[in-house]
Amino acid sequence: MKIVPVQDFDLRREVDYGTPEQNARAKQIVSDVKTEGDTALLRYTRELDRTELTADMLRVTKSELDAAYGQVEESFIAAISSAAENIRSFHMREKRNSWMDLQPDGSILGQIIRPLKRVGVYVPGGKAAYPSSVLMNVIPAQVAGVPEIVMVTPPATGGMDGINPYILVAAAEAGVHEIYRVGGAQAIAALAYGTETIAPVDKICGPGNIYVALAKREVYGAVDIDSIAGPSEIVVLADASADPEYVAADLLSQAEHDEMASAILVTPSHDLAERVSAEVERQLELLPRRDIASASIQNYGAIIVTESLKEGISVVNRLAPEHLELMVADPMAHVGLIENAGAIFLGAYSSEPVGDYFAGPNHIIPTNGTARFSSPVDVDDFIKKSSMIYYSKEALLKNGAAIMELARGEGLEAHARAIEVRLKREGKAGEENGN
Amino acid sequence: MKIVPVQDFDLRREVDYGTPEQNARAKQIVSDVKTEGDTALLRYTRELDRTELTADMLRVTKSELDAAYGQVEESFIAAISSAAENIRSFHMREKRNSWMDLQPDGSILGQIIRPLKRVGVYVPGGKAAYPSSVLMNVIPAQVAGVPEIVMVTPPATGGMDGINPYILVAAAEAGVHEIYRVGGAQAIAALAYGTETIAPVDKICGPGNIYVALAKREVYGAVDIDSIAGPSEIVVLADASADPEYVAADLLSQAEHDEMASAILVTPSHDLAERVSAEVERQLELLPRRDIASASIQNYGAIIVTESLKEGISVVNRLAPEHLELMVADPMAHVGLIENAGAIFLGAYSSEPVGDYFAGPNHIIPTNGTARFSSPVDVDDFIKKSSMIYYSKEALLKNGAAIMELARGEGLEAHARAIEVRLKREGKAGEENGN
Repeated sequence: MKIVPVQDFDLRREVDYGTPEQNARAKQIVSDVKTEGDTALLRYTRELDRTELTADMLRVTKSELDAAYGQVEESFIAAISSAAENIRSFHMREKRNSWMDLQPDGSILGQIIRPLKRVGVYVPGGKAAYPSSVLMNVIPAQVAGVPEIVMVTPPATGGMDGINPYILVAAAEAGVHEIYRVGGAQAIAALAYGTETIAPVDKICGPGNIYVALAKREVYGAVDIDSIAGPSEIVVLADASADPEYVAADLLSQAEHDEMASAILVTPSHDLAERVSAEVERQLELLPRRDIASASIQNYGAIIVTESLKEGISVVNRLAPEHLELMVADPMAHVGLIENAGAIFLGAYSSEPVGDYFAGPNHIIPTNGTARFSSPVDVDDFIKKSSMIYYSKEALLKNGAAIMELARGEGLEAHARAIEVRLKREGKAGEENGN
Repeated sequence: MKIVPVQDFDLRREVDYGTPEQNARAKQIVSDVKTEGDTALLRYTRELDRTELTADMLRVTKSELDAAYGQVEESFIAAISSAAENIRSFHMREKRNSWMDLQPDGSILGQIIRPLKRVGVYVPGGKAAYPSSVLMNVIPAQVAGVPEIVMVTPPATGGMDGINPYILVAAAEAGVHEIYRVGGAQAIAALAYGTETIAPVDKICGPGNIYVALAKREVYGAVDIDSIAGPSEIVVLADASADPEYVAADLLSQAEHDEMASAILVTPSHDLAERVSAEVERQLELLPRRDIASASIQNYGAIIVTESLKEGISVVNRLAPEHLELMVADPMAHVGLIENAGAIFLGAYSSEPVGDYFAGPNHIIPTNGTARFSSPVDVDDFIKKSSMIYYSKEALLKNGAAIMELARGEGLEAHARAIEVRLKREGKAGEENGN
């Protein structure tokens, strides 16, 4: 693994907005499903997923869900059930209440916090189908109180029984029972606009291929969407106390995701840099996904040696990584200095997979430097707020003149008159009666 | 004002994404400012705002800010200062703390909540420059703790001294002292990428013309942006107890904003419908902005008569209006039934301008039916969260096997090994030493 000096290293990469042809194709599919409903949905499922379905076959049945449990090891069910419990417990702490501020003049101001009504979760098919991601999308919505959560996932080519049973078990463990075997841009359109079989949702989340991403952009506004995730990233900030074997293993756990994934070590220790570099090479050889991990390390991996730990922290803040491991002697002494990082893992035992799967915080985290201004998925992503304003007569009489002053300062006379008509009625606007 | 039966009335309108020429133009301006910095910024200011500036003239000086106070009535300064205090007080209640969950095994999980570091607020020039909007964008950012808030606003054509003094006073009252006289797509690019004079920000908010909107879309990802507001809307839900004069005045206060604004009365009372319709016509004649208000009422105004108040509530929930006034005998008895509305005004004295200017809640509220899934601007729009995971050795030893099970269930062996290398070291993974 290459050791590089501090430089203008940047995690940010171009976002793929698709070719004009892909854009046109996604637009067409969305528009067809919007106008034709199930007919177009089934036609595109036949064309693109090579699966012949009728409308009554779209929904995954209770007996299919039950059958999935038989195809999955007991130990996996136990593990995913514990993970679900931890994720639920963490997200419960994010929940907020509606609140009111009762004022001495009798006015009440407040913020009403409500769950979204219906949310759609897209789960990709094939190898990119991660049961853990099902939990990470569904549980925050559930904790927010969303009463209807629906999942869509492409049918396996050529058949009905092909949905990955691990996905179905994860969905059932998370509490989702409304699942449709549709995928691609057509599934996104069905969720956004509804069809005869699938009722429309308020928000769509979950990852997918370029057509799914483009369709989500296309329907945004009619529904909310989550943000589009870039390739995964880890930065390990380590001092001489760190264990090179642990550091290397953690870097590789990120690198195996994807050839575009990025794994970076930042350290003031030359010695650690050398040892991690050698250890990465050694462990890499033993990995089943070594081709992927190797390409990632080659193209987007680096060991950056800094003058000091302090300089290392400033490099981290500039990179604003999705995942940050603080493998330093006293991690709590440094966490307050980290301004930009999606998730921060402290100490030798907080290996990134702990958070990917199990501890409780969400694993859907801002990538591509966007941790500067955005946040991991949480309960807030599935609520909406309404302001509440109950103004008492006393408050209006007291403040009416100031409100009219501000309205007239902006040249909005009808705004001023909406107040004035009330003040006049109460005999508080110079003259009484009439205009 | 026309009375219509309950029907498939929809507040949603097409969003303006600009012509291909406008898109290309905005892209070009952004790209030029990104690469050339101040040079391009000043060139476009000369070309588009017909104002010849040098880099050292971009920033509004302290003495200009002071001078603005001399150009504005005392009563306006007092009113805007009270409004700022109310807005600050309301938004203070939205603030949240970072939190931790300390577990019995010594692990600590948490969510770190931090302000964004630097935020840019765009304020349009000319008649669309609203001092109240300056407060509504700036104060939540300030309350969130954003240390650097910067404002940009176009120079008045042909001169330096042309920035609306009401805007400058509002900025100063809100506490913004870094203000640049630049506007359009070039100002957005300067905020996103920085120039020699203007340091880059993490988020850009505030309304603007189509080029500003397109430039914001273009720079999204490099920085965060707020959502793009559609025309303003009010729905008044009223029963026979409502005062037709008040209802009409409130409908017109919305209609005067913009020819595309929408003002709708929903009521089960035929009598109220007739009286409000007549009253709107009467008040309309007396308004300085009657041409605008009249076009709005004509094209996007309606009185919808329902069978019952209950049906009225369901119409409101379908419309998901930006502003809702509940002018019914017992508004608190109905507020719990309102699922979708950006801001809810209760009772006869809570006229919409109370919230537009003064009460405290934000007046930047979701339009175009998006209150179904989005929220008024608040402190949350100016913070970011980081997950914190400190896992104890005990926790890892206890849960390591489950984490490995989940990783291997997803085919991610390097994830499993990052855990295994630690368990082995502690003698808890079957065999000790080596792989």
